[in-house]
Amino acid sequence: MSSCIGADWESRAAKCREILEQSLPKSYLLSPDQIPPASQTRVIDYPRESGILSEKELLITDSTAAGLVSQMGSRTWTAEEVMRAFLKRATMGQQLINFATEFLAESALAQARRLDQIFKETGKIVGPLHGVPISAKEHVGMKGRVCNAGFVSWCDHVSPDDAYVVQFLQNAGAIVHVRTNEPQSLMHVDSANNITGRTLNPWNRNLSPGGSSGGESASVSFGCSPLGIGSDMGGSIRMPAAFTGVYGLRPTAARLPLAGLKAAGLGQQSLPGVVGPLARSLEDLELFMKSILDQEPWRKDASLTPVPWRSVRTLANLTIGILKDDGIVRPHPPVSRAIKIAEDKLRAAGVNVVEWEPFQHREIYDLVNAFFAADGFQNLREALEASGEPILPLTNVVYGWGKEMTVYKNWELNYQREVFRAQYHELMKLRGVDVILSPAYPGVAPEHETGTYIGYTSVWNALDHPAVIIPTGMHVDPSLDPEDSSYVPRNELDAAEHAKYSVHKFKDAPIALQLIGPRFGDEMLLAAAGCVEKSIKSP
Amino acid sequence: MSSCIGADWESRAAKCREILEQSLPKSYLLSPDQIPPASQTRVIDYPRESGILSEKELLITDSTAAGLVSQMGSRTWTAEEVMRAFLKRATMGQQLINFATEFLAESALAQARRLDQIFKETGKIVGPLHGVPISAKEHVGMKGRVCNAGFVSWCDHVSPDDAYVVQFLQNAGAIVHVRTNEPQSLMHVDSANNITGRTLNPWNRNLSPGGSSGGESASVSFGCSPLGIGSDMGGSIRMPAAFTGVYGLRPTAARLPLAGLKAAGLGQQSLPGVVGPLARSLEDLELFMKSILDQEPWRKDASLTPVPWRSVRTLANLTIGILKDDGIVRPHPPVSRAIKIAEDKLRAAGVNVVEWEPFQHREIYDLVNAFFAADGFQNLREALEASGEPILPLTNVVYGWGKEMTVYKNWELNYQREVFRAQYHELMKLRGVDVILSPAYPGVAPEHETGTYIGYTSVWNALDHPAVIIPTGMHVDPSLDPEDSSYVPRNELDAAEHAKYSVHKFKDAPIALQLIGPRFGDEMLLAAAGCVEKSIKSP
Repeated sequence: MSSCIGADWESRAAKCREILEQSLPKSYLLSPDQIPPASQTRVIDYPRESGILSEKELLITDSTAAGLVSQMGSRTWTAEEVMRAFLKRATMGQQLINFATEFLAESALAQARRLDQIFKETGKIVGPLHGVPISAKEHVGMKGRVCNAGFVSWCDHVSPDDAYVVQFLQNAGAIVHVRTNEPQSLMHVDSANNITGRTLNPWNRNLSPGGSSGGESASVSFGCSPLGIGSDMGGSIRMPAAFTGVYGLRPTAARLPLAGLKAAGLGQQSLPGVVGPLARSLEDLELFMKSILDQEPWRKDASLTPVPWRSVRTLANLTIGILKDDGIVRPHPPVSRAIKIAEDKLRAAGVNVVEWEPFQHREIYDLVNAFFAADGFQNLREALEASGEPILPLTNVVYGWGKEMTVYKNWELNYQREVFRAQYHELMKLRGVDVILSPAYPGVAPEHETGTYIGYTSVWNALDHPAVIIPTGMHVDPSLDPEDSSYVPRNELDAAEHAKYSVHKFKDAPIALQLIGPRFGDEMLLAAAGCVEKSIKSP
Repeated sequence: MSSCIGADWESRAAKCREILEQSLPKSYLLSPDQIPPASQTRVIDYPRESGILSEKELLITDSTAAGLVSQMGSRTWTAEEVMRAFLKRATMGQQLINFATEFLAESALAQARRLDQIFKETGKIVGPLHGVPISAKEHVGMKGRVCNAGFVSWCDHVSPDDAYVVQFLQNAGAIVHVRTNEPQSLMHVDSANNITGRTLNPWNRNLSPGGSSGGESASVSFGCSPLGIGSDMGGSIRMPAAFTGVYGLRPTAARLPLAGLKAAGLGQQSLPGVVGPLARSLEDLELFMKSILDQEPWRKDASLTPVPWRSVRTLANLTIGILKDDGIVRPHPPVSRAIKIAEDKLRAAGVNVVEWEPFQHREIYDLVNAFFAADGFQNLREALEASGEPILPLTNVVYGWGKEMTVYKNWELNYQREVFRAQYHELMKLRGVDVILSPAYPGVAPEHETGTYIGYTSVWNALDHPAVIIPTGMHVDPSLDPEDSSYVPRNELDAAEHAKYSVHKFKDAPIALQLIGPRFGDEMLLAAAGCVEKSIKSP
């Protein structure tokens, strides 16, 4: 019997793999001799160095979304050639880092041609994302297409409609050309599942692109898409963005629509889930948000708050609190180095910088894990057991986050969360801090299947503060980031993360930081991030 | 032993009663011969007919909040004389309908004199509620004062601060002069507890003022206060307002601050609780909302949504859906008569009126009751058992609403609630309906301890739609509202409510209707209510 069950899950997963394989744009596939050996860990430069893409294709696929729209609007490039270039680079990416679950080449090209036609006839772009190819995390439903959310048992679930977030982006002119990988359970700090396998980090293929939006982060960092749709309940946009050197925003909850996303345990409301962008510039994060919010999405989705996007252009007297260590897990040397450099450069630039002493991080971290576990992971177990697919190691780690609780306990913890939210709100005012600069994770991209500590991001989910990832432009450097063998960890979590660091493992990995703003202060947060980025990247 | 426990709860409750008794403004107390006999059911006219209040005191205490501010601002009345008049009428009310838990006469008069002084010095009123006496439901915490939320066991709980809603109203110039009664558990459609007893309906003292904001509704209807703070999780502002012929608004959730309210089971978030106003005019409901929201309360309380009050002055092409019967419990004859008259008059006034077929009311009603019961009423039981106070009959009715559920089930029902919200949002658009006119309850004010069916209001709590009570100016009339003995009830709930009706029981009871708007459409809802009121009250 067990082999029958095994055969069943494998054949069900195979159907989704077949969809992926059939969808690959065949003309762009690399020949076997063009594919770099598995031993080549760094493939981030492959698009340029391989000589396979033309200079124009490189120019296009290295552009930001805003840059693309500008060039299409000034007739430099057509939407079709933009789309073809991204499909070509994405197909290359798929062969090198396995980031996709499905290509939508035909429909994307058809839509691009339609936009070119409209532009030709009217002389106007259709919207602020005219012709921008975007990638979308697989669990973001698309009409008539399978949406498995990383579970084999859902490999025959077809979405009745495009998710609302996709509809709003399409209204603004964007075109989804590729759907991206995610982990079993949607809860790993990694992106591997029993359907489309494991996504690799293009900076170092021995490392994880993060998760759960790891297909997205791999896509945007490799240049398969300039902009993508991720989702975040404990750090699922931010850790992937940080690990791959791209920008990512976890917006305040209930600003962007969740309708049409599939996951186990919808209806959980102690930890608000969100969708948000991954991109190659801060400007593109804002473009994504503004393009949707300018359409007043709350008129379509009554679960949203009617708060428009209120761009912030200038910030007077910005004060940045710097959280160097959350008191639970000490950051690895590269991250501490980046924090120190950021602090020095911000001070040098005349920005007000103060120390941000961690407040109740352990309590809030425990709260988050307890919320994830509140149903005893029954939703997760059902989705897994329905196919009998093998449980991946990080899913077992998730099972260790906690046990089923009663509704009585859940109410008590919800109330505790509200108290923490009020305390943080007061504390930021009391300390005069506008935004908090912090690690996004104890280290840079972890090795596959080893990412587990989400405390640097998940605390902000519980508090519902928006947070953005800023790549520093710095990378792990053996000469600057040696191990500190004298360090005595303060607890088990700290010991486990400390033991994972060895500078040579993390060769080439980008270093990023996280900036956190107040609830509903997404606009100010992005403006502050611009200020931080400018300082960090100054010579 | 049991008598000791008895003695204990009784002595604890006695302390709160003592607070009330000590707080009564002695000089305003009626002499025994002035107090109407218990057999006199109607006392609504007593303030005028008794001759105890001067013409000026009647003028003041019959005013709306807006009217009071206008008169104080034009130097017709001082804040102190306004406050004295309301304290006098409220003391009278206390002796006739037992609506209060504590008078704040001294602090209120001191604050009124302070406002008069400021006005004298600056020539300006301090805010849009300058000198307006307001009543506040007892579970709205006030600094340094006991807040028992209707539980004997909390009779020694002292609030560390004024609730945020009180602070914002005070900032706007309002003065809390009296705190009002509420039922044991805060969940009855009635207002009786083991501490300060039972509140009566001034229109007919055999009837209930409703609950849980029944002290408030009694206060505003009798003229003890022009404006009051209630709270609503299943209809607790609206049923009381409807039963006593005053206006009441259940705003969209997360617009007004809840911080500083005390209740059993804080942390429950499947059914959003709200605070909101009870008043003598629609204009005052808006004044209350605008006075708070103009202060941007979200800057103080991060749990709120940053949505300002956006007054709506004119409505073009308003379409009203009329819900005549929710399909579960048929309204009693007076309510059906009012609905019919409203429909006819709205049509006559040229307003677009369509039938609103009930949609999933039974399912949503069941959902609400299940949410109330989700913790197995453990929070409620603990608060009751901590003192050993007797369980009142309606608390036992509440215990019958459902059983403890798992977190797994709670998530499933939360998701179902989201589906209902989306369906209603779509349905209103599809049917082209802006607002829905409906009963607020199957009947007018029920007899004491008999109000149980909350489906006409609670459905909108689950959906988080704002809803307002509009008194029609009509009253139960034996010649117009005879029993329909031929009616065959369709289910047990319907049979129970049908059996409660007998026209003579409900002598003098006012008839009100409920108007429901879309989520975050509070401003439009009040504008539409103005249109409905104007039509209904036209000759």
